[in-house]
Amino acid sequence: MHDPRVPETLEGWSLLHQMFRVRWSEIMALPGAQRERVVGQARETFEGWPRGDQGATVLATLLGHKGDLLLIHARRDFDALQAAQLTVGRLDLARFLEPTTSYVSVLELGLYEMTGQIHRRLGERGLKVGSAEHDAAFDMEMAEQRRRVLGRLFLEMPARRHVCFYPMNKRRGEIKNWYAVPFEERAHMMLEHGKIGRHYAGQVTQVISGSIGFDDWEWGVDLFADDPVVFKKLVYEMRFDEASVWYGEFGPFYTGLQFSASELAVYCDGRVPALRGQ
Amino acid sequence: MHDPRVPETLEGWSLLHQMFRVRWSEIMALPGAQRERVVGQARETFEGWPRGDQGATVLATLLGHKGDLLLIHARRDFDALQAAQLTVGRLDLARFLEPTTSYVSVLELGLYEMTGQIHRRLGERGLKVGSAEHDAAFDMEMAEQRRRVLGRLFLEMPARRHVCFYPMNKRRGEIKNWYAVPFEERAHMMLEHGKIGRHYAGQVTQVISGSIGFDDWEWGVDLFADDPVVFKKLVYEMRFDEASVWYGEFGPFYTGLQFSASELAVYCDGRVPALRGQ
Amino acid sequence: MHDPRVPETLEGWSLLHQMFRVRWSEIMALPGAQRERVVGQARETFEGWPRGDQGATVLATLLGHKGDLLLIHARRDFDALQAAQLTVGRLDLARFLEPTTSYVSVLELGLYEMTGQIHRRLGERGLKVGSAEHDAAFDMEMAEQRRRVLGRLFLEMPARRHVCFYPMNKRRGEIKNWYAVPFEERAHMMLEHGKIGRHYAGQVTQVISGSIGFDDWEWGVDLFADDPVVFKKLVYEMRFDEASVWYGEFGPFYTGLQFSASELAVYCDGRVPALRGQ
Amino acid sequence: MHDPRVPETLEGWSLLHQMFRVRWSEIMALPGAQRERVVGQARETFEGWPRGDQGATVLATLLGHKGDLLLIHARRDFDALQAAQLTVGRLDLARFLEPTTSYVSVLELGLYEMTGQIHRRLGERGLKVGSAEHDAAFDMEMAEQRRRVLGRLFLEMPARRHVCFYPMNKRRGEIKNWYAVPFEERAHMMLEHGKIGRHYAGQVTQVISGSIGFDDWEWGVDLFADDPVVFKKLVYEMRFDEASVWYGEFGPFYTGLQFSASELAVYCDGRVPALRGQ
Amino acid sequence: MHDPRVPETLEGWSLLHQMFRVRWSEIMALPGAQRERVVGQARETFEGWPRGDQGATVLATLLGHKGDLLLIHARRDFDALQAAQLTVGRLDLARFLEPTTSYVSVLELGLYEMTGQIHRRLGERGLKVGSAEHDAAFDMEMAEQRRRVLGRLFLEMPARRHVCFYPMNKRRGEIKNWYAVPFEERAHMMLEHGKIGRHYAGQVTQVISGSIGFDDWEWGVDLFADDPVVFKKLVYEMRFDEASVWYGEFGPFYTGLQFSASELAVYCDGRVPALRGQ
Repeated sequence: MHDPRVPETLEGWSLLHQMFRVRWSEIMALPGAQRERVVGQARETFEGWPRGDQGATVLATLLGHKGDLLLIHARRDFDALQAAQLTVGRLDLARFLEPTTSYVSVLELGLYEMTGQIHRRLGERGLKVGSAEHDAAFDMEMAEQRRRVLGRLFLEMPARRHVCFYPMNKRRGEIKNWYAVPFEERAHMMLEHGKIGRHYAGQVTQVISGSIGFDDWEWGVDLFADDPVVFKKLVYEMRFDEASVWYGEFGPFYTGLQFSASELAVYCDGRVPALRGQ
Repeated sequence: MHDPRVPETLEGWSLLHQMFRVRWSEIMALPGAQRERVVGQARETFEGWPRGDQGATVLATLLGHKGDLLLIHARRDFDALQAAQLTVGRLDLARFLEPTTSYVSVLELGLYEMTGQIHRRLGERGLKVGSAEHDAAFDMEMAEQRRRVLGRLFLEMPARRHVCFYPMNKRRGEIKNWYAVPFEERAHMMLEHGKIGRHYAGQVTQVISGSIGFDDWEWGVDLFADDPVVFKKLVYEMRFDEASVWYGEFGPFYTGLQFSASELAVYCDGRVPALRGQ
Repeated sequence: MHDPRVPETLEGWSLLHQMFRVRWSEIMALPGAQRERVVGQARETFEGWPRGDQGATVLATLLGHKGDLLLIHARRDFDALQAAQLTVGRLDLARFLEPTTSYVSVLELGLYEMTGQIHRRLGERGLKVGSAEHDAAFDMEMAEQRRRVLGRLFLEMPARRHVCFYPMNKRRGEIKNWYAVPFEERAHMMLEHGKIGRHYAGQVTQVISGSIGFDDWEWGVDLFADDPVVFKKLVYEMRFDEASVWYGEFGPFYTGLQFSASELAVYCDGRVPALRGQ
Repeated sequence: MHDPRVPETLEGWSLLHQMFRVRWSEIMALPGAQRERVVGQARETFEGWPRGDQGATVLATLLGHKGDLLLIHARRDFDALQAAQLTVGRLDLARFLEPTTSYVSVLELGLYEMTGQIHRRLGERGLKVGSAEHDAAFDMEMAEQRRRVLGRLFLEMPARRHVCFYPMNKRRGEIKNWYAVPFEERAHMMLEHGKIGRHYAGQVTQVISGSIGFDDWEWGVDLFADDPVVFKKLVYEMRFDEASVWYGEFGPFYTGLQFSASELAVYCDGRVPALRGQ
Repeated sequence: MHDPRVPETLEGWSLLHQMFRVRWSEIMALPGAQRERVVGQARETFEGWPRGDQGATVLATLLGHKGDLLLIHARRDFDALQAAQLTVGRLDLARFLEPTTSYVSVLELGLYEMTGQIHRRLGERGLKVGSAEHDAAFDMEMAEQRRRVLGRLFLEMPARRHVCFYPMNKRRGEIKNWYAVPFEERAHMMLEHGKIGRHYAGQVTQVISGSIGFDDWEWGVDLFADDPVVFKKLVYEMRFDEASVWYGEFGPFYTGLQFSASELAVYCDGRVPALRGQ
C-alpha cells in the first residue's frame, strides 16, 4: 500500500562518508623510504577505486579539528561500501588515520510533487488507495520515473574544489512537527525550498542522500562549489524559507578542499594538495 | 494489582548488543601464525555459542565509525548474558576490540490490544480491579498467552544479510506525553503502527526488546532484511503514523551486514565476510 | 525557619557508586603468580571493608560497555567515602580499572506526608511558621522521627542477585515544573507513587539517595531483585503514575549481578562470580 | 550609559578552578625516593602560593570520577591566573594529573537592590538616564560601594572542610526567560533568594563568581561547610524559591574535602589528607 | 534574485581558530638543546606567518582545560587557511599539541539596515524584486559598499592583551524563531544590539565572522580588550537587549592572553608570555 502521506523516493548510490584525523607527527617521523612506501600503497589503492557506474571515492582535506581527511565513497550497494571501509582499514596508512566520525546514507531523489500527481492521476482513473490495482499502477509509474532519472541517481561526483557536508532532520517538535503537516503543505514548502537551490544551480552542486534507518540524522547534504562563500550564502538564504525556519534541524558542518588521489604524497608531506582535471 | 493504564508484556530472550571498533592496524601487524591462532580461538568460541533454546549470537560488520563489529547475544537470563560478555572479554582477540557502545534489553511482546480485552472480559465477569480474584484471573490469562506465543519469545535470529539496530523512547514531553494518553488511544495508535510493520512483513523481520530499567532508552529495535533500502522505507513510512509523529524519539542507528562465525578469518583479513546458510 | 514548601528529609549512609571498565586483555596477559597476587590483594581489601554500623561495599558486575565492575560504598561520612575511593585507587588492581562514571549521594528518607502533618499539628498548637517556638518544636519532631527510622537510614545492603542503578530528577520545565506545584499536590503524587513501590515490595528492595548539592542529578535509585524482569515491570508501571508522567526525568541505567568479595578471583578469571550467603 | 535593565556588579578575585584526575597507579609505581622528590616539589610550590591580598589557592580532594583533585586559584588578575595554571603544568607531578575540567570566573557582588536605589535616587535628583551627569554620578556611587565592600571582593578563602562547586545559568527559555523579566521583579526574586542563603549563613560560606564572557555558564558557586549535608539542604530549599523554580539552570556538581598543602604527601600516598588550622 | 527577507553580507578574511592542549610534561621532559630546536622552529614559523594584506595569525594562551594555546589564522581564502593548518601540523612542536577544538568562519559585515535601504531605493526606482534590472542594480550597490568598507573586511588583528572567543546562533525555536521575524523587526533589533557594542567601542574590539555552511554555529565572535572584566560587562549587558533575550544562543567561551610569536620560548618554558608592541 502506498500511504498517501508519504512522499515516494528513488534511491541511487550507497554513500559512506569517513572523516579521519591524521596523526601528522607520526607520519612526519617516518623514515623517508618507509613513508614513501606507506603513502604509495594508499595512493595506488585510491587511484584504483571503482569508477563510472561502479562508483567513485571523493578525497578532501578538512578544515579544523573535526578531521583532516574526508573520504566519500559512492558504491552500488552496502557490501561494496563495507569493502571500501575494510580496504581503508587495512592500508598501512590506516595506522596514522583516526576515525572521528562517519555517515551512512543512500543517494535519494525525494518526489514530493510527483507523488501528489501520481496519487491524483490514479484517483482520477478510479483506482482506490490500498487496492492491488492502485499499487501495481503506482509501482509502474515509479519504475518509469526511475528509468527517467537514472543518471541523477548514479551521478558522477562533482569535480569542484570546495566541499561542504552536513546532516539534517525535519523537526519533530511538540509544537512544530513536519510529520504532522498535511502532504500538500509539505509539498508546497519543498517546492519553495527547491527554488533557492535552483537559484544557485550554476555555483553549487547538491547531492542529497537519505539516512533514515541508517544513521543518526534523516538526510545528508553534500555541497560542491568553486567558491566556499557560496555555501554560506546558500545555506543562510535557505534558513529563511518556511521549510527550514520551522522544520529544519542541522547537524555539524564539515568543510574542506577536494583533491586528486595522485596528490596524496603532497598532502602527506604537509602541503595543500591540488584537484587535477580528471 | 494490574494497573489498567499499563499494557501487559511478555518477556523472552535476554539480549546484549555489543559494538566494537576493531584495531585493524594492530591485527594487520600480527605475524601470520599468531594472527591465525588469535582469530582461530575466537572463531571456535563463536561457533560454539549456545544455539536453539539456549540462545544465539548474531555477528555483523558495521558501516561507519560507530563500530566495526556487532555481536547480538540472545540468552535465557542475565547470568548467561554476563557469561557471554566475559567470554568475549577474555578472548585473545579482545585486545583488538574496543567497546564503543552496547545495549541491554529483554525481548518483549507488548500486548496493548489484549490487555484491554482481558480487562473488559474480567470486568464483564464482575471482577473488580485490585481484587484478589481479578489478579488471579488476570495472571491465568497471561500464563495462557505466554504458552501460546512462546515461539515468538524465544525465536531464532533471522538469517538475513542486513541488520539495523536503534533504541527508541515514547516521548515524555511537557506537552506531548505518551504516558498521559488514555489507554484506548494508545492501543489504537499501536494498532495503526503495527499495520505498517505488517505491510513490510515479507521484506523485513523485526525484533522488539524492552529496556526500561536496564538501559538508557525504553526499547531496542532490530531489523533484518535482504535489501537495506527497506530499512529506510519502513522507518520513513512509520514516521508519519501518529504514534511516531508525536511520541516517537529515536536514538542512534547502527547498520551492517550479518555474517557467519566461520567467516571470521575472512573478516580479520580485511575482506567482507559472507553469511552462509545455517 | 522550616519553609512549608520544602519536604523534610532524614539522612543516613553516605554513598559512593564507582563504575569501572576492566582492562581484561591486560589482566589476562599477567603471569599467573602475579595475577594471583594482584587479585589476592584486592580480594583481601574488599573482604576487609567496613561492615555493620560502619558501612558496607556492594560488588557487582555490569552488563554492557558502560562499565564492567560496580562498587557501591556506604559509609558514615564523606571522609570515609573518600578513604574508600583512595583505597581502591592505590590497589595494584587499579591499574586494570578505568573509572567510567560514579555517583555521590546520601541515603535519604523523604517525608512528604509527615512534613505536612507536622506543619498542621504545629499550626493547630498556634505556633507560627518562622517563630523560634515553631522551629524548636519542628526540630524536636524530626529528631523523634530520626530515632524511629534509624534502621532504615543505616540499613544493610540487600543480598539480592540483580542490581539496577539510575539517577533521576524532578522536571523543572518551562511548563511542567515540580517545584512550582503546591505542597499538597506533590505530597499526594508521592503517596500514589509510593504505592506502586509497595506493590512490588516482596520482589524488589529500593534504596533512595539524595544528591542535590553533590552530583548532577537530584536523586539516585538502587533496586535489588532476584529476577531482573521485575526492574522492567516496576519502572514501566511507575512511568504511568502522575509524579513520573509529567515530572520524572531519568538518567542512564546500570544493570548487573551482585557478587561476593570472595569470588573476585573467579571474576578476574573471566567467569561469572556468584553471590554467596553472607 | 548605565542601562536601567542591567544590575550593576562589583568584581574582585579572578578565579580559576582546575579539576584533575590523578593517575594513582603511576604515582604508586614510582620508586620511593623519586615519588618523594616529585611530591616534595609540588608541596613546596603549593605552600608558596600567593597569600593575603595577592590571592590564595584552595586544595581539595574530589569524590567520584569527575576528578580526584581540585585547585581553586584566586588571584589579582588573569595574568596571575595564567601564571598559576602554567606553574601547575610544569610541575613534575603534572605528569600524573589529567585535567578533566575547569572554570574561569571573577568573584562578583551582584547589586540588584542597590542598582534600583541608585537609579531612583539619581532620578529624584533630576538626572536623566544616558546623560553625562547621570553616568558620572552613577560611577561615583559605584566607586563608593566598591570601597565599602572591598573585603568581600577580596575575601579569604573559607577554611571549612567540605567544598561544593557548581556552575549555573539564569534560564533563557522560549517561555520563561529571566532576561525578559522587569528589573523590579528580578530584584524582588533575588532578595527572596538571598534570604535562604542568609538563613544558612552560620553553616555555609558562599562564594559567587560571574563567568559571562569567560566560561560556558553564567555564574559559578562555591559552598564551604563543616557538614556536607548542609549543601543538600541549602540547594534543595533554594530549588523552591521562585528565582530558582523557573529561572535556575544548574550545571555539574563537584564535591570534596578541603586539605592543607602540607598534607600533599599524605594524599599522594593514597590516604585522606587533613585540613590543618592555617 | 535578492530575497528581501535575507540581509546582505560582505565577506573578508577567512578565519580558522585552532585550540590546542599543550602536553607540558612531555615538553618539560625534552633535553634542553632539543627543546630549544623544537621551539625555535615553531617560533620562526610563527614569526614568518603572512602579514598585512596577506593575513595574520594571533597567538594566545587559554585559561582552563579547554585548551592551552589558541591560534587565530586570518587568510585570503580557504586554501591559505588549509596551508596554515598543515604548516602547524607538521611542526616538530605539533607532537606536543593536542587539538581540542577549532572554528571555521569568514569575517562578515552584516548589512541589515543597508539591505532595507537598498531594497526601498530600488523599489522607488520602480525596479521589481526578481527582475534582472533589480538584481543588477543591487549587485552594483553591493560592489560599491564593498569598496567603501574594504578596510573593515581585511582589518588588522587588534593588539590588545585579552582575547575572548565564542560562537553563537540566532534561536530557531518552536515558539521564538529569529528566521520567522519580519525583516524590519530584525533590523530594528540589530540596530539596538549594535548600540551596546558601540558604547563599549573604546574598551573592546569586536570581530564578527559568519560560519553558516562552514561550522556548527552560525557566527563566531572575537573580543579583544585590555581589561577582561569588560568582556563580562559587555556580554552581560547585551543579554538584556531583545535580540539576545529571545534569540541569542551562545556556545562555549574561550578566554586567554594574546602574546607575541617572539615570546614562544618563554611560554614553552612554562612562564606567562608577553604581548610586545608590534
